[in-house]
This record gives sequence, C-alpha cells and structure tokens, in this order.
Amino acid sequence: MPADAVTSDYRARRDRLRSRLADADDPAEAFVVSDLVNLRYLTGFTGSNGAVLIWADDPSADRICTDGRYITQVAEQAGDLEAVIARNCLAELTQRARDDGAAQIGFEADAVTVAEHRALLTRLSDSSGDDTPGTELIPMTGLVQRLREVKDAGEVALLRQACAVGDEALAAIIERGVIHAGATEREVARALEWEMYARGADAIAFETIVAAGANSAVPHHRPTDAVLADGDFVKIDFGAVVGGYHSDMTRTYVLAHAQDWQREIYELVATAQAAGRAALHPGADLRAVDAAARSVIADAGHGEHYVHGLGHGVGLEIHEAPGIGSLATGTLPCGAAVTVEPGVYLPGRGGVRIEDTLVVTDDTPELLTATDKAFTVI
Amino acid sequence: MPADAVTSDYRARRDRLRSRLADADDPAEAFVVSDLVNLRYLTGFTGSNGAVLIWADDPSADRICTDGRYITQVAEQAGDLEAVIARNCLAELTQRARDDGAAQIGFEADAVTVAEHRALLTRLSDSSGDDTPGTELIPMTGLVQRLREVKDAGEVALLRQACAVGDEALAAIIERGVIHAGATEREVARALEWEMYARGADAIAFETIVAAGANSAVPHHRPTDAVLADGDFVKIDFGAVVGGYHSDMTRTYVLAHAQDWQREIYELVATAQAAGRAALHPGADLRAVDAAARSVIADAGHGEHYVHGLGHGVGLEIHEAPGIGSLATGTLPCGAAVTVEPGVYLPGRGGVRIEDTLVVTDDTPELLTATDKAFTVI
Repeated sequence: MPADAVTSDYRARRDRLRSRLADADDPAEAFVVSDLVNLRYLTGFTGSNGAVLIWADDPSADRICTDGRYITQVAEQAGDLEAVIARNCLAELTQRARDDGAAQIGFEADAVTVAEHRALLTRLSDSSGDDTPGTELIPMTGLVQRLREVKDAGEVALLRQACAVGDEALAAIIERGVIHAGATEREVARALEWEMYARGADAIAFETIVAAGANSAVPHHRPTDAVLADGDFVKIDFGAVVGGYHSDMTRTYVLAHAQDWQREIYELVATAQAAGRAALHPGADLRAVDAAARSVIADAGHGEHYVHGLGHGVGLEIHEAPGIGSLATGTLPCGAAVTVEPGVYLPGRGGVRIEDTLVVTDDTPELLTATDKAFTVI
Repeated sequence: MPADAVTSDYRARRDRLRSRLADADDPAEAFVVSDLVNLRYLTGFTGSNGAVLIWADDPSADRICTDGRYITQVAEQAGDLEAVIARNCLAELTQRARDDGAAQIGFEADAVTVAEHRALLTRLSDSSGDDTPGTELIPMTGLVQRLREVKDAGEVALLRQACAVGDEALAAIIERGVIHAGATEREVARALEWEMYARGADAIAFETIVAAGANSAVPHHRPTDAVLADGDFVKIDFGAVVGGYHSDMTRTYVLAHAQDWQREIYELVATAQAAGRAALHPGADLRAVDAAARSVIADAGHGEHYVHGLGHGVGLEIHEAPGIGSLATGTLPCGAAVTVEPGVYLPGRGGVRIEDTLVVTDDTPELLTATDKAFTVI
C-alpha cells in the first residue's frame, strides 16, 4: 500500500473518533489515548511507550507522544502528527491539553490504572496555579475499541493475508505428514509455527494449541510431549500475525481410523458452526448469534459440554470487541471481523472445535479461513 | 525439578508476600493479586484470566480463582491452592475476602484499571447489607514486583537456560554464515528465532532487533527487508523464553571491513559496558550504576548519542524492576537479574549497543550471556 493511503487511513480513524467525542453523553474537549493497541490503530505507531492527544474540534492540535528511544520511529510511522518527546506520555499530553485550555479531558478508564490516575491527579494539581480553573478528567470506556469493531479496507486486506498464511501453513504440515501417530503435540505446534513464519507471518497470533486424544477435551490445552496415537482426535487452534492483524482458525482431525462417537460429535459441531455463520448479519443481536449455534448443541443433549462463547472480534488483538456469547450485549456491525467457534468437549474422551474467521457484510459473510471443514481422517 | 520443589517455591513466595503485608505502612488483612505475571510468580498458574487471594495471617485461607476454561490447568499448575471458578476473579476474591471478615483489602493499583476499580466498588456496595461494616480497598503498588527483583535458585536456573539458548542460537547463525552482505535484516532475525526454538525456547522474548548500516543508529529498529552490506554495523538484540523466564542480549558486529570510527565507538561502548558491569554490587545506588557507564560515554563527548537507560531487571517479564537509569530511585538488591546495555547512536551513520544479562551476587556478578564481546568483523 502506498504511504499516502496509510496516512489517510489513520487520519480517517482519528476523525471518526473526533466525531464521537463531540457526540458523547459526557463530552470531552480533548481525549488522551494511552492504550498501545488503540494508539497503533489511530496513528500507526508501534513503539512500546506512547499516547496520542485528540481534540474534538481541531485536528491540527492533535499530538503524538513517545520517549527518546523512538524519535526516528515515530517520525517514520506517524510523520503526519507533531511528536512530543517525554517518558510519561499520558501525563504529558493531559497537562498539554489542560495548558491549551481544555476543561474536560477524557482518558481511557479501561487502560489507565488506578496508580496512573492518582499520579495524573497529583501532577495536574501540583502544576495548577491558584487562578487556574479546575480540570475535569472524564473516564471513557471502550471508545476506540468500538471504532475498531468495524474494519476498513486496509484492515480487511491484512486479515485476509494473515488467514491465508494460516491456511497455507496447515496445508503444508498435512502435506508433509507432520500430523501422524508418534509425533508429539509440541512437534506439530512448532512445525505449524515455522510454516507460518516461512510464509511471512510477523509473529504467532497466540500460543498454538495442539491437543491430541483426551487432551482435545481441554478447550485451551497447551501442547505437551504427549504422543499422537491412531484413533485420536487432534485439535489444532492457531493463527498468524501480518501487519499487526491476527488470524484465528481451529480444525479437528481424526488420526488413522474414526469411531462413530467421533463422527457424531464432529457433525454436531459442524452443524452448529454452520448455523452460527449463517446468523452473522449486520444488526444481529450478539446473543441471538450465539444462540443460533448453541441451540443446535443443546438440542442434541450436549449443552453442558460446550463451555465457552461462540466467538470474538479479531484484529489488532486476538480477542477484541464484539464478544459473541450468551451474556453479550449489543449487535453485530457491518464490517466486523469475528470468529465462529463452537465446540463439544467430552472429559476424558476428547473434543471437537471448528473455528473460522469471517467478515460481516451486507451479503453472505466473507469467509477468511478457507481450509476445508469436512470430517477428515488423516 | 521435582513437582514438590516447585510447589514449595511458590508457597515460599506467597509467604514472603504475606510477611510484607503485615509489615506494610498501610496494612491489609487480605490482598488480591490480579496481575497475571504476579499471579504466575506466586502460584505457577499461566492461564489468561485469574487472581489469587493472600491472607496476612492465614495461609490456609488463600484461594486462587480462574474461569471454567482452566479448571484442569489450574489443578495441574496450582493444585496446592483451593480454586474458585468465576469470570471476574478480582471482584470474586475481593468479595470473598470481605465476606470472610477482612475490613482492609489490598489490590494492585498498578494493575487494576480505573474502570475495574469502579466496577469493584459498585459490586461491593450492591452486595453489602445495611448492617455490614464498610470495607476499605487499599491501593498497593509494586509489592509483588519488589519481591520479584530478587530471584530464587529456580528462577536463576531458568534464566541461565534462556541465556544459553540465546548464546547457542547466535553462534549457530554465525557458524552457518547467515550474517553476510546480501541477507536482509528480516532473514537474519528469522534465522536466529528458528535456532532459539530448535534449542528449546518456549517463545521469543521480544521482537528481535536486527539493524544494519544506518538502521543500527535506531535504538529499537524493527527488522525490514533492508539488505546487509559490507562495512555495515549489524546490531542484534534478542532473547529466548524458557519456563517463562526471558534472556536479553545485544551484540554489534561489522561486516567484512571496519572503519576507524566504527572501531572507536565500539571500544567506547565496550569500556562503558565493562564499567557498568563492574558497578553491579548489592546495595549500589541505581543512579550510580547508570552513571558508571554513562560518564565514560559523556566524557568522550557522546553523551547526547546515548539516549536510554543503562539496563533493567529481567525475569518473567522482559522489562521489570529494577530499572537502571539516570532517574532511577533505590538500590540494587543481591540476587537481582539485570541487563547492562549502553549504546552510542550516530544518526544516519550507525550505532553500537552491547548488552549482557547478569545476576548480582555478593561477589562478582554472574554473567549469564556468554557470547564474546571483542570487536568482531564478520
């Protein structure tokens, strides 16, 4: 992508945030974003310390802040924003907003710790003269996270790439015969990760799950030296990061020969997963999407063997808004990228999870994870 | 290590924390630790959601909390603690402490967000009857982090392993001729990471830095497709994770043929680094340790080209207490594991950083990163 297009993407994101600031119930004249993922989303800057100050009514007064280690990097990644160099960027930008006349200054209540907040109050109070009118710090929650739910074209392009890397890496290890009786869970996980790196992944999206036999009944099993055996379920949940964006896919296979109970729960989960995918449309109630898949499993008598939500948003973080579960609130926006991943786990025997990453559109959702989902004996 | 030894290590860590609770200026009867790294340190549990409740005077009432996904894992990793299963572990354990009679309950003010704190206050107020005496939530800062500064024998053993993996991986890519004119920064980074995985790394400690030529003047450069050329500085900053513990090492080489200015700044940084290592002794003022190295560079007229602190603690996190810099406060405890990593960066030309990880002892510090530091042309 040309640099100009990227810069304008970030500027467009800040402008969307700006319009929300003005519209908020509890309006702020300025907003300091210090969560590093939100900072990256709004500016492109990927350093480990920083914040951005967004003004409700004056884009030219927006500032990015980071420390001396990142002087060159911030100029390269966010050269369209004037940079302030300081260690404590939250405090620095908040004070700057106050000095420049903001009386209500928003901060991210879901990112700022109690200790940082206390230090901020102390700094503002220490630096205010007797004649200075008080500054109000407004706790904001989820403002940027809600913007991030709807992916723009550049984000969807990166998600497609990340998912393609995952598809190709899984195909490569199957082709190479890595998933076989005698291999360990850890060997399969490592091989998969190497194939993702070889295809351009910047990083692994999360700790790869490879769970064989009874271990497949543990939803978040960490790979061990357990050895795969004929007749095992092998559940593989993994993803790649490309340009900051995460893919997420689960496939479950059977080794060498399948038993009837394995085929039955596989088909049940596959049916539930298809129902969940079919329920993904703009404006859908999140609980209804969860229920579309969950009811299939519950009706088959396996409700208590499905112990987690149906899915989650995915983007710059592996888990982000919206969460799709039985306790979720809200609706699914057009342009959201989400996973659909029901499972049935039979303790001591084995479990199946089938997961895709999709983008919600006005038409059929776009399926980003293309690996086949038919019942497969390897 | 036998499982019993590990369990007793965690118990000893909780007991050290317990004694600090009783001794604190602002004592708490119970303390809820919700930071996930601190939770792992105190219990061994590595799930992505959880907390532990520590009582000042009754170890048998300690409880760990996590959600339903981790029922099996928490029993395996922290089976000596009774587990509570809930989604919001901070709120669940705080309420339990209140219900069991604690009037002062500590929480981690540097981990709990403003939003979580507000939700916690709401829950406690909703669930308290008219006759219930008030509960005071005591903000605690850095309590577990300060314990973590001093590594126990099991932790030092893991740090040694992690550093050895780094040493061997770097030696392997040099032996294989990976660092040569024509290779890209990204290829060198990837090869190094693969060698670490092949030697048993659980993960990469942080985004590997490989910076060639003028890029070496950027302290935290991310590897690109830039091609290494003869005469370049090649700066490599990387680490492995073993059993949760991070290694951290930087070496800077010159490709093919060196110029005098390169040799000069290399020797300057090496002299500063040796001075920094020599200043590591128990009880040393952190600023004095920083100054021992910094004064060497400043005296040579390069003070403004050394833009970061001298080092940092390393353990379950890549950056942890104590920080060693010109604004640091406090002293260096015996048993701390720290980096010593001065650098000189000449914008547009190139830079040198030399970094080791060491453990502070009563005698000479133990050098964990063994790779040679002599000026080397590859």
